[in-house]
Amino acid sequence: MTVPRILVFDIFGTVVDWHGSIVRELRQRFPQVDADAFAIAWRAGYQPAMEAVRSGGRGFVKLDVLHREILDGLLPRFGLAALDDAQRAELNGVWHRLDPWPDSVAGLTRLKARFTICSLSNGNIGLLTDMAKRAGLPWDCVLSGEVFQAYKPDPRVYRGAAAVFDAAPGEVLMVAAHQDDLAAARDNGLQTAYIERPLEFGVAHPKDVSPVAANTLHARDLLHLADQLGC
Amino acid sequence: MTVPRILVFDIFGTVVDWHGSIVRELRQRFPQVDADAFAIAWRAGYQPAMEAVRSGGRGFVKLDVLHREILDGLLPRFGLAALDDAQRAELNGVWHRLDPWPDSVAGLTRLKARFTICSLSNGNIGLLTDMAKRAGLPWDCVLSGEVFQAYKPDPRVYRGAAAVFDAAPGEVLMVAAHQDDLAAARDNGLQTAYIERPLEFGVAHPKDVSPVAANTLHARDLLHLADQLGC
Repeated sequence: MTVPRILVFDIFGTVVDWHGSIVRELRQRFPQVDADAFAIAWRAGYQPAMEAVRSGGRGFVKLDVLHREILDGLLPRFGLAALDDAQRAELNGVWHRLDPWPDSVAGLTRLKARFTICSLSNGNIGLLTDMAKRAGLPWDCVLSGEVFQAYKPDPRVYRGAAAVFDAAPGEVLMVAAHQDDLAAARDNGLQTAYIERPLEFGVAHPKDVSPVAANTLHARDLLHLADQLGC
Repeated sequence: MTVPRILVFDIFGTVVDWHGSIVRELRQRFPQVDADAFAIAWRAGYQPAMEAVRSGGRGFVKLDVLHREILDGLLPRFGLAALDDAQRAELNGVWHRLDPWPDSVAGLTRLKARFTICSLSNGNIGLLTDMAKRAGLPWDCVLSGEVFQAYKPDPRVYRGAAAVFDAAPGEVLMVAAHQDDLAAARDNGLQTAYIERPLEFGVAHPKDVSPVAANTLHARDLLHLADQLGC
């Protein structure tokens, strides 16, 4: 393995627990709602919404906007059609308030001592900045698809991150809990580290976290990644 | 004064001491060179180089590239024409290694406790990230003209920073040691804070740091700014 210089991290599911965070907030605000189903449905709208941008059918818009559109579509199904604009905006902000996995802050802090660590998420810059400030995620730099006006797996995002640092793609290690993100990163020349997050979709929906040989590294969590990188 | 939500900072001269840092590095590497004149000449090429981009005559290129072109033009005048490409690249990297003013880290740390703090510099993202990591500048987010593919005082930079945070321009406070930067920020609706940096150009070239009434705030340094903002 060539030692990388820059580590870029997927965020939703990899560094923060979107399902658990949304479930906790929904249960508090709307105890009558099936919070697990709501969180799953909200996230299920994510790829189709971005696809409209990726396919070129729609100009780039921030993920905050897409999250809100998906939310507006969901509310009637969950008996929440009466929420007004301010209530919807407040609820949509939950994506700025996601909690980190228990190992994330400690793992990133160790990794930061040796590498430049950046987010590389489809979340917009403001969302990622608010999240990092609240959760204490110690990024050296907040990178987002918004910087490159494109959504992963668009090659511009992976190649753009390397170009920001005048790095060869192989000097960049993409860290994610999703094999499709890592496959796209690899196609663009980046090294890849898979992080197991078996409960990303909640305890009712465990996911397969089997190793894929094409990845450079495979780690249980970010502390285990730091171990493997000698931090 | 409306209390701002986001503080954005000019970097060269405002947060870091470019003149002193370049002089120190040049004296160490090339003691035969007039380091003060070299630093002043390098910086003097900055506005004309960006103007080629701002006028639309040249597509956006990173400041690292402009710094290198200016450097290449200067070296013969200072008897350094023999430097090879690697030596020039290494010297050009001094802009990534600028030292903060003595109050910068402590002042930013206090301001960060209450506000979202971001760079908003014409320096490129990689330059600003390397600088922050080395100097311990605790940005919540590294914003750069590179994000907006434009150089200050292009309105896209000031308005873009507000848009990143879905903020009204008046919720953003631009902090700089340069009245022209602040005037442009003000023209775009931002609040402004002037920071005195009388020795920005070195002890041989003190600059006028008189207050301008149009600014929202006027501070001796970033600690004094934190005092005024109740941090």
